[in-house]
Amino acid sequence: MDTTKTERFNKGWDKLKEIDGQAGVNVIESLKDVSPDLAKYTIEYPFGDVYSRDILDNRTKEIAVVAALAAMGNVEPQLKVHINAALNVGVTSEEISEIMILMSVYAGFPSALNGTLALKDVLKERASQD
Amino acid sequence: MDTTKTERFNKGWDKLKEIDGQAGVNVIESLKDVSPDLAKYTIEYPFGDVYSRDILDNRTKEIAVVAALAAMGNVEPQLKVHINAALNVGVTSEEISEIMILMSVYAGFPSALNGTLALKDVLKERASQD
Amino acid sequence: MDTTKTERFNKGWDKLKEIDGQAGVNVIESLKDVSPDLAKYTIEYPFGDVYSRDILDNRTKEIAVVAALAAMGNVEPQLKVHINAALNVGVTSEEISEIMILMSVYAGFPSALNGTLALKDVLKERASQD
Amino acid sequence: MDTTKTERFNKGWDKLKEIDGQAGVNVIESLKDVSPDLAKYTIEYPFGDVYSRDILDNRTKEIAVVAALAAMGNVEPQLKVHINAALNVGVTSEEISEIMILMSVYAGFPSALNGTLALKDVLKERASQD
Amino acid sequence: MDTTKTERFNKGWDKLKEIDGQAGVNVIESLKDVSPDLAKYTIEYPFGDVYSRDILDNRTKEIAVVAALAAMGNVEPQLKVHINAALNVGVTSEEISEIMILMSVYAGFPSALNGTLALKDVLKERASQD
Amino acid sequence: MDTTKTERFNKGWDKLKEIDGQAGVNVIESLKDVSPDLAKYTIEYPFGDVYSRDILDNRTKEIAVVAALAAMGNVEPQLKVHINAALNVGVTSEEISEIMILMSVYAGFPSALNGTLALKDVLKERASQD
Repeated sequence: MDTTKTERFNKGWDKLKEIDGQAGVNVIESLKDVSPDLAKYTIEYPFGDVYSRDILDNRTKEIAVVAALAAMGNVEPQLKVHINAALNVGVTSEEISEIMILMSVYAGFPSALNGTLALKDVLKERASQD
Repeated sequence: MDTTKTERFNKGWDKLKEIDGQAGVNVIESLKDVSPDLAKYTIEYPFGDVYSRDILDNRTKEIAVVAALAAMGNVEPQLKVHINAALNVGVTSEEISEIMILMSVYAGFPSALNGTLALKDVLKERASQD
Repeated sequence: MDTTKTERFNKGWDKLKEIDGQAGVNVIESLKDVSPDLAKYTIEYPFGDVYSRDILDNRTKEIAVVAALAAMGNVEPQLKVHINAALNVGVTSEEISEIMILMSVYAGFPSALNGTLALKDVLKERASQD
Repeated sequence: MDTTKTERFNKGWDKLKEIDGQAGVNVIESLKDVSPDLAKYTIEYPFGDVYSRDILDNRTKEIAVVAALAAMGNVEPQLKVHINAALNVGVTSEEISEIMILMSVYAGFPSALNGTLALKDVLKERASQD
Repeated sequence: MDTTKTERFNKGWDKLKEIDGQAGVNVIESLKDVSPDLAKYTIEYPFGDVYSRDILDNRTKEIAVVAALAAMGNVEPQLKVHINAALNVGVTSEEISEIMILMSVYAGFPSALNGTLALKDVLKERASQD
Repeated sequence: MDTTKTERFNKGWDKLKEIDGQAGVNVIESLKDVSPDLAKYTIEYPFGDVYSRDILDNRTKEIAVVAALAAMGNVEPQLKVHINAALNVGVTSEEISEIMILMSVYAGFPSALNGTLALKDVLKERASQD
């Protein structure tokens, strides 16, 4: 039983590192002392179950998630993690800008501007890490 | 000047019909008496300007928009219009289900369930129109 | 003590009837059996305290409230009550349409469209009551 | 592997029936043809994992969930399911009214009114089923 | 008349200090120059009227409010004030973590993660004040 | 064609500077490298089309927009830009406080408090620039 939980966990942990890289690992680390169970669930359900599905490819998944988080407008840390993830799996920064332009229509210009500035921040951070 | 406004308008009107089909035309019709200017702007900016851009293809645009509207959770009529639009441009119903599964992670299970039931409604309406 | 609570209540009740008319009275009636205390608070705080202030006039208050409720996008019954209230205190339907056009910028086109269609419904109901 | 997935599933399915009763079963049924995997995940993660935890008792869980769904204001079907669930596990209708009064402070009077009217609807449905 | 307004105010002020402690007093202080009337209303309605009700005990109230604010996801300062308040009235940090795990289901993992990190911040601040 | 696009752009650019002043220009500048097209659209649609309409005067427009952004509660940078804009077109700080008191009713006290503190920040920044 515990062993199989470990299977979803292990699959999730690998998926999280593949897609979110160090930013994702940092999120999990930050949770470990205050809520180890939420850390475990975050690995198991979003990554072990959902991200491990293969009907949508990684690019498509991240495009959908970046659009959703930008539209919600109240989860900036996660938006930045997923802008990073999108760039990691081959979405270009031009395509992410394009998603934000779409969001100006559906969630309004403020969310589109804030999403675009989040992209700008992520690009700057990535440039400084090269 | 008016002629060129007509250019964005005409481009937008064609794009709206291409992507949203009759459902989109119905939205515009419903606005005409109460707010002809919002009808005009809806054609010009979202469709004439934004949807006419070609960095993302129609499939990718609709995937992003369906994800965003499902995550927002408070715009069901527009979610249905865009589930229809997504199906029109070649996104499969299986892929739309998949977006809703992703949304269970980011916007919670209630939004994912409601988005999935919106898909179910749209599929039923389309089946009844064949 | 009870007497003075009655003062805020009475002032609120008069204000509610002045601004919202029968639609507001109906809301209070619908609450009375399930939550008489929420009914009382709704009269006392929003109407007895807040709406009775005179720094903004009634027109300006309703313009602000209609904009806010349309932007929130998840409180359609209250949006309709306040579109009615706005019309009652002299905001024109053309001005309310204009607020919705503004909201297309700040909260996105779906909220603007739904707000405009709510206005259309209210205008139809009022026409049928003449 | 599949067997253990069945363990979380079975635990979740029992929990769902214990807490949500027929309303919860209906939600799962409604998903089955359009998204059997979301149906499965809904049983496994929210019920098999989360609701099966025992740090908070069922009453406390439902009080938290009803408050959250009322505050979000855009997920009425789920709010009703959880008002039912709260009543099933011993939260009184007076206590649910009280949560809505609290929400008037934190999410505004419109969400509090709509939450209270959702409670009224649920009470009426339950009375008609006796 | 003024005397009785003072009664609600005084009851509210005592309640605010009892539940929110210094964090609550600081909020009121920060409002005093820019909006003394909102400061007054914040004491009178949320604390003098609502928090002074006794159908739910303080623990239950704070559990409902913390869940709601975490689910809303856009009011972090108030979430921290109420995490503090919850701890003040005897909710344990383990129980607050548990609420956030529940919120991963209803409002999504981003809100649950941000709520858990808000708890972590509050615990650190409280530890540094001992 | 391009010339006429320039007409909407020029009208929008003048309007943006008239209403938002330097804060608005800074937003556009910040977008220029990461998304020049969103910068262009922000000038053309919100300012060239919408703000250039004359059914509502500038004061009324800003009152509606400040109310909406405060109610949404997740777009603080834009709320501050528009509190500035409101002050620029003659809305008094007392009137803006009043809008926030109204929002305590419709969007809850947390949004009203955060909106009032945003006003306080803007007033301090303006005082320091004299």
